[in-house]
Formats: sequence, C-alpha cells, structure tokens
Amino acid sequence: MTRTEPAGLPLGDDFHLYDTTLRDGAQREGISYSVADKLAVAGLLDELGVGFIEGGWPGALPKDTEFFARAADGELVLKHAVLVAFGSTRKAGTTAARDGQVRALLDSRAPVVTLVAKADRRHIERALRVDVDEACAMVADTVSFLVGEGRRVFLDAEHFFDGYAFDPDTALRVLDAGYTAGADVVVLCDTNGGQLPLGVADTVREVAARTGFRLGIHCQDDTSCAVANSIAAVQAGATHVQCTANGYGERAGNADLFAVTGNLVAKLGMPVLPTGAEAELTRVSHALAEIANIAPDTHQAYVGASAFAHKAGLHASAIKVDPLLYNHIDPASVGNDMRVLVTEMAGRASLELKGRELGVDLAGRPDAVTSVVTKVKRMEAEGWSFEAADASLELLLRNEVDGPVEPPFTLESYRVVLDHRGDGEVVSEATVKVHVGGERVIATAEGNGPVHALDVALRKALSPSLPWLDSVELADYKVRILLSDPGTDAVTRVLLKSGDGDQEWTTVGVHGSIVEASWLAMCDALVHKSLRV
Amino acid sequence: MTRTEPAGLPLGDDFHLYDTTLRDGAQREGISYSVADKLAVAGLLDELGVGFIEGGWPGALPKDTEFFARAADGELVLKHAVLVAFGSTRKAGTTAARDGQVRALLDSRAPVVTLVAKADRRHIERALRVDVDEACAMVADTVSFLVGEGRRVFLDAEHFFDGYAFDPDTALRVLDAGYTAGADVVVLCDTNGGQLPLGVADTVREVAARTGFRLGIHCQDDTSCAVANSIAAVQAGATHVQCTANGYGERAGNADLFAVTGNLVAKLGMPVLPTGAEAELTRVSHALAEIANIAPDTHQAYVGASAFAHKAGLHASAIKVDPLLYNHIDPASVGNDMRVLVTEMAGRASLELKGRELGVDLAGRPDAVTSVVTKVKRMEAEGWSFEAADASLELLLRNEVDGPVEPPFTLESYRVVLDHRGDGEVVSEATVKVHVGGERVIATAEGNGPVHALDVALRKALSPSLPWLDSVELADYKVRILLSDPGTDAVTRVLLKSGDGDQEWTTVGVHGSIVEASWLAMCDALVHKSLRV
Repeated sequence: MTRTEPAGLPLGDDFHLYDTTLRDGAQREGISYSVADKLAVAGLLDELGVGFIEGGWPGALPKDTEFFARAADGELVLKHAVLVAFGSTRKAGTTAARDGQVRALLDSRAPVVTLVAKADRRHIERALRVDVDEACAMVADTVSFLVGEGRRVFLDAEHFFDGYAFDPDTALRVLDAGYTAGADVVVLCDTNGGQLPLGVADTVREVAARTGFRLGIHCQDDTSCAVANSIAAVQAGATHVQCTANGYGERAGNADLFAVTGNLVAKLGMPVLPTGAEAELTRVSHALAEIANIAPDTHQAYVGASAFAHKAGLHASAIKVDPLLYNHIDPASVGNDMRVLVTEMAGRASLELKGRELGVDLAGRPDAVTSVVTKVKRMEAEGWSFEAADASLELLLRNEVDGPVEPPFTLESYRVVLDHRGDGEVVSEATVKVHVGGERVIATAEGNGPVHALDVALRKALSPSLPWLDSVELADYKVRILLSDPGTDAVTRVLLKSGDGDQEWTTVGVHGSIVEASWLAMCDALVHKSLRV
Repeated sequence: MTRTEPAGLPLGDDFHLYDTTLRDGAQREGISYSVADKLAVAGLLDELGVGFIEGGWPGALPKDTEFFARAADGELVLKHAVLVAFGSTRKAGTTAARDGQVRALLDSRAPVVTLVAKADRRHIERALRVDVDEACAMVADTVSFLVGEGRRVFLDAEHFFDGYAFDPDTALRVLDAGYTAGADVVVLCDTNGGQLPLGVADTVREVAARTGFRLGIHCQDDTSCAVANSIAAVQAGATHVQCTANGYGERAGNADLFAVTGNLVAKLGMPVLPTGAEAELTRVSHALAEIANIAPDTHQAYVGASAFAHKAGLHASAIKVDPLLYNHIDPASVGNDMRVLVTEMAGRASLELKGRELGVDLAGRPDAVTSVVTKVKRMEAEGWSFEAADASLELLLRNEVDGPVEPPFTLESYRVVLDHRGDGEVVSEATVKVHVGGERVIATAEGNGPVHALDVALRKALSPSLPWLDSVELADYKVRILLSDPGTDAVTRVLLKSGDGDQEWTTVGVHGSIVEASWLAMCDALVHKSLRV
C-alpha cells in the first residue's frame, strides 16, 4: 500500500492541513472541474504542501472515478500530500462488503478514505430514516471493513455541532462508533455553517475532554466565520483542519485554505507547510482561481491583490516611516506585495525579480525597467494581465532589453467566416496569408469554431517551413470577458497554454474580438517556441 | 441640539450598531462616493435601522464637509440613526479650541463626534512623533472641548490590540484620557486586522475588568476574521460595534454590517434592528453595492445570491423533507431565498424542487420529470450546465411540461465574417436572415467582435417587430472553454446574463464554435423575455 501520512512536512502527521477543494469546493455554484482540471488542482496543492487532498467521490460521480483511476495509474505523483477518497457509509440493511458505493471507494485505490456520517439525530431519523443504532452500525461496519482492507479512515461527522446541541448522546455515539472501529480522526463538521468561534472552541474542548479522540474541524462560512471557527477549533485542540482553496464551496463557501494557513503560520506559529512554501500562497491561490475560472477575490485576506493596498489618506506618510506599522504581516512572506498608490501592477523591484526568474537580466538597465513598467501599466489598464502569462511577459521584456525579437513569420491578413446555414449546419472556415521563409503562403482550413479554424489554417501555412511546429500543442485555453460597465463594449482576454512534450508555456491576448485576442496569444506562443528551437 | 441617541430601536442606546461605510468603507480600492451617493447610502442605512452613521471626515475631505452641510440643512432626515463626524484629536503644541480640524468637526453640526487616537506607543512615538504624555493631553483636551460644546464623543483607539500587546500601560492611558475627559465609549480598534477571535475576547474581557469603561469594537478583515472578532468582542462585553456595508474597506476590508447584524440577531438573539427590519438585509446590501458600483458578492453570508444555494446531490431529497435541516436560518428571515442548483449530481428530487422555484409544476408529472432528467444528463455530458442558467432550464422544463414554447422569431441562417486586414485593422461583420412577424428580414451589422456583431445585426432585424427588445440589455457574459483532453476538440460554454431594468435572467449555450454557443444563449434569453411581454 502507498503511504498514508504526509511527507516532508515539518509537523509530519501530527497536524493535518486537509484540502477538499476538489470535492466540497466543487459544490460552489459555477465550478465544474474537468478531470484534467482536477489533476492540475491536486498538483498545485501538493506543491504548496497540504497534507491531504480529497479528490472527490468515486462511484458517485463518473469524473471523480476517472480522476482517481488516472491518479493511481501515474498521472498524479504527490510529493507531500496523500490522496483521499470521500464517500458515505454503507446503506441501511446490507453490509459494507456488499455495498457498491463502499466498493467504489476501495476501487479508487486512494490510500485514505473519508467517510461521511450524520451526527444529528434529526437527520438520522428524518433524512436517513433509520434509528440511531442502525446509523452507528453503518458507521462501525463501513469503517472496520475499509480498515480491514488496509485503508486509513477519517470520519466526517456531518451536522455535528447542531446535532451535539440538540442531542449530545447521539452525536457522541456516532463519533464513538467510528473511532472504536478504527477511524483515525473524527472530524466535527459545521455542515450548515451556523456556528460562531467561541462556541466552536467550547464544543471542541468539551468533546476532546469527553472522548479523548483525535479531532478534526470542517466549517462552512454561513456566518462569515468559517476561517475563525477553524482557527478557534485548532486553538481548542483540533489537529486536522479541512479547507478549500479560496473558500470555494456550497452557499457562502468553506474555510479558505489560504487564510487558514496564513493564520496558522503567522498568528499561531505553526509550521504547517514545507519550509518557504508560505511565499507561494498568493501564486497558488491565483492559479487555482484561474483553473476554477473564477475571478480572484481582490480583497481576500493574505492573498488578494488588495490585501496590502493602502489608500493613502490617513496613513500615507507614516507608511513610509515603517510599512510594518501598517501591515499585520510582511506581505512578501505570503508572496504578496504592499501597494500604496493605486497602480495596476507591482513596481520595479518585482519586475526585476521576475526578469531574473525568466532569464532576462534587467540589473543594469533602469531605462528598460522604466519603459517596461510604463508599457505594462498601460496594457493592464486595457485588460491585459501578465500574472499567468510568463511567456508573453518574457517577450515584452526581451523586446525592451535586446531590441525587437525576430518572429518566425509575419501576418499579411486573415479572414474567418462563420456560417449557420439554412440546413442548420454550423461551419467555421479560416484563410490566412502569411510570409514565412521568404515566401508568401495562403492557406484555408475548416474547424469546429473560429479559433480552431484559424489555428488549423495557420499550421497548414507554416508547417512546411517550420517543422518544429508539429510538436507544439494546445494544452489549455481560457477566456475571460472583461465588462467594465453594463452596456459598454466588452473586451476579451485569452490565456493560451501551449506544450511541446517537454515544456509548457502560457501567453495572453486581449482584444474586442475573441478571434483576434486568440490570434495574439497564438503568435506569442509560436515566437516563444521559435526562440528555443 | 439634535438627539444623540438612536430612536425607535428595541435596544435603545444600550447597544450601538455603528456604520462607517461612508468613512472607513470608502477606503476600499475603487470606491468613490459623490455627495449624492453619500446621502443615498445614509438614507438606506437609516431605513435598515443602524444606530449611528459615520458620515465622513469634515474638514479633511471637501466632499465630506459638503455632505454634513447638506445633511444638516435638511437633505437627510434620519428616523433611527444619529449622524457622526469622524476626525482626529488636535495637533501637538496647540489647543483643541484653536485647531482648525477640530473646529471643522463642530462646524459639521453632527451631534456625535468620533475621535481617532493612537493607542500604540510605537505609533505615538514614530508616526505622531510626540511622547505619551502629550498624546494623552491631545486626547483629553479635544474630548473635553467637544463635550463642552455639547457634542457626544466616542473615542476610536487606533491600533489598540497591537498596542496593548506591546505596552498595555500606554494603551490603557490613552483610553483613560478619553473616558475621563467625557468620551462615552472607547472603541478598541484592530487597525491592522491581525487579530483572532479568542484573543479579541480575552483582551476585551480584560480591558473591561481593568477599566470599567463602555467598550466598542472595530475590526479589519486581514485574517478573514473581522466578523468573528466583532462578535467575539460583543460576547466578551463590547456594546458598540463598528461595521461597513458588505465589509467594504481598506485592504481586505472591514467587518461586514450584514453578517454582523445577522449573527447578532439570529445567533445571539439580540434585537439590534427595528422589528421586522432583518428582512431588509438582502435588499439593502444589494442596493448599497449598486451605489458603490461593485458587483454584489454572490457568496456573501446571509445576503449573497448563493448564500442559500444548494448543489443538491447528497442533500436534495432530504431538503424536500425539511429545508431547515440544511439551512442555518430561514432564508426569508433576512430577505433571501433558497435555491436548488441543478447539476450533474441532480436527481428527480432536486429537479422537482427547482420546478417549484421556477413556477413550473412538476408534481403530478413523473413522465415529464423523467424526460427532463434524461435530457439534462445527456446535455451536461456534452458540456451544458444549468446550475447558473435558470432561464434556459425553465424553457427546457416548459417544453417538456406544456409542449414546445413558441419563439418570437426563427432563424434561417447567419454569417459572421472576421477580417484582420492587410492594414492591420480588425473588422467583424454579421448578417442574419430571420423570420419574424410573418416576414423574412435580412440585416447586416458590424461589431467589435463576432458575437457583438451578431447581436447588433439580430437586434436590427427584430426591433421593428419586437419593440420590447430595446429594453433587453447584456448584463454579464461569461465564457468557459471545456477541454476534455489535450489535443481533442474543445467545446465552448457561454453564460449570458440579460436584464430589462426590472429583472435579470441567465441563459446558457454550448457549441464547438463560441459564436454558435453565444447565439444559442441569446435566443433563449429572448424567448424568456417574450414569455413575459
């Protein structure tokens, strides 16, 4: 069996930072992860250093089943984290061994299973429609079956806080059924999200004293206290905390992984991440927002673009004396920046750092830095964003530092025609006229959409002269419509991730027309590759 | 002198719900209130029933000076609230009576003044550059001067929590200087926002025991705990809580008035608002977002559009049994609604619930439910998603239950041509051929992108026959590219939010071509509207 404990984390298995972005986070309205998205999310979370990644509900959702299969077949190699499958206990009136859903948890090949069980008598009797004895038997039977099959098991005690307030004996019996049968951690869930931190701390302390079990915490944000409730539970003795990236989740959402982690590290002094990984919080948060296709919350604690933005006024001059007098932590410690003026982009220092990262030396070139900062600010005001588009930023830097980069081809013109014909058929056709290798080439192609048609036509025109082109593939393609005000013209931003088998790189294009925006990103992608051929 | 105590509130002056949207909230990046905006905000807050409205900083900001003048001249008549002017204590080395800024507070004619004073010795010495004696003299002198002039005074003790941790004596001396001189409430401010609730509760309890002063609380959200910290302070004895609408404020923002109020009322049983006013929370929150020109946070606790949205699956059939098993409060109590999202996890139960919500009765139609479930599952497998597209789902339901919905027009064909010309110009042109009102109409138009061009051409063709079309506007447009696997064909999903001034509705379209996907969503949007004309 693969490992069931996190690797390379300072606190080892003593404290669990447990992420459920891929299961409970996916409950957020508007999120719909593909299997490829799920693999990418898990990779980023592992890179950051969470201890456990709940990947989904195999057997209940076909995409989740496929995710676990592909992960187990080697598409996901985890450095720190352990993969967890989520599922419910067996149904009433059968055995765990014979329950198809329980079987699916085994089949997922995840080394850890988190089972959900209702801990509120009202839910047991009215939603589950069994008595408390049978509910406890369902828990005990399923836990011991999975433990017997070599799995590590955690128990999510759903509706625990409400249930404990209504009928403490039933709530504790459910915990006991799981723990006695071999569950490692019992997780107290505020499923309806109605708790407040002082109450959570009292309950966690009381339950710990009465049971001696290892306790976890799972909070929803319906009182806007999910982060606070999670931290209060840890201060009261919980050693396992379940979060989702950016607080994604049903209704008001879950406890935000980034705020919880920031608080654990910066406020409670708990080294829950690998050394140095806190500085990745901002980047990972934004990358996960990108994959979820949700605009990052600019005012999110720790990682929001405005989290350390000061609107001068009262504090402007004092900030110059000592920025730490006005920031609760050093923004750089979480990979964020302080901003005093309302500027679109981080300043010269971060651009120099970025240049170094991209291999463009800006050290002795203050003039080039100035002109890039000016250009980037102007472009960002028009809707460009280079945060996730390193390859486009690199081209921009090179153009300033080394002079214009020679492109592998030049465009004369393109035309794309989209027909929804009288017979109902929809056809996209593109024609490009380009100059490449000293020749003028015209090519026409069809595609299933305008951008696809343009891509196919361009490849047809360039391939004979640029044989390396065949190795370049589209890896991901994201579109965001930027509407300034209702009724005004929208601008489209396209992020294009390309790959050649060895490496992946991302470029950006912005235009009123999605086709032109895509074209700009495609051109940058090909120039980027041509510099490495 | 006008009244200095709230009127018509169940708790009278014993508990202060104090709003600073117009001062601290205006520090949020992107907010810029006009004087008319400020008057509208104050009117809405008063209508809701907050006790105190901090209107701004007269003398420091010309707009704020004007706001107070117009309010005092009768443009703002407050039913419940008392208007508060915010300002700092006198400068060092002068007297309050001779300080221009202090004079401006009197001139504002606000019956209550909140003075801000630094309570952290590091700030006193390094930012203010005076010693603690002088800082306390500045507080005492200014408070007693204003009290002598008939004003009620509150003292905001800035950086209190950090200051108290660093040097408790200085922090307490500042409070004492204000209280002894006649301030009514001393407000403990977590100015840098770094606190956590258990610590806040401990400090408030300790300070209350050591001083016996009436304490207030003001929290920033830098640990994502502003609401929790505010509530914890109240539980520990604070009887004055400062908030901003929707948590607007500098950096990560302030404590959200609506979540704080929801928690005080629903969780602590404190009737802080006039009878029945809780049901206005959602409406007032959205109206204030409108004035601030910030899109409402759909996932905001209590008042967000998704605050009671359930992605069914696990819970759908149980929600039918009793919705309160799955909501921490009755959504109607805060003027919000429960919504059930139809997703791939959807079964019959959630679809029936959804039908009820949309006004399509599926109760006696098991056949229709079966056929819709089948259709939705098939479409979701192709990339459709109805969870955010109620209007498209409603059409789908109506088509099954009542037979085909008659569309206001039919398409014969469209053609969109996108040119990137030799001179570098990018042009989009669309031609539509439609049948409407018994006629065949052809129209051509340009746009800044293919979808825009198609939209303009369609409106041109339909407007003469469908006059209601002019009221329908694009409110939001989202595009998601669904890549199943690298290299395979992508599918585009478009979510289109339309509005007619009264209502907003969202439709969805999915196709290989973004233009056809947008077309499908546009057609649904118009059919939806036509059923309501």
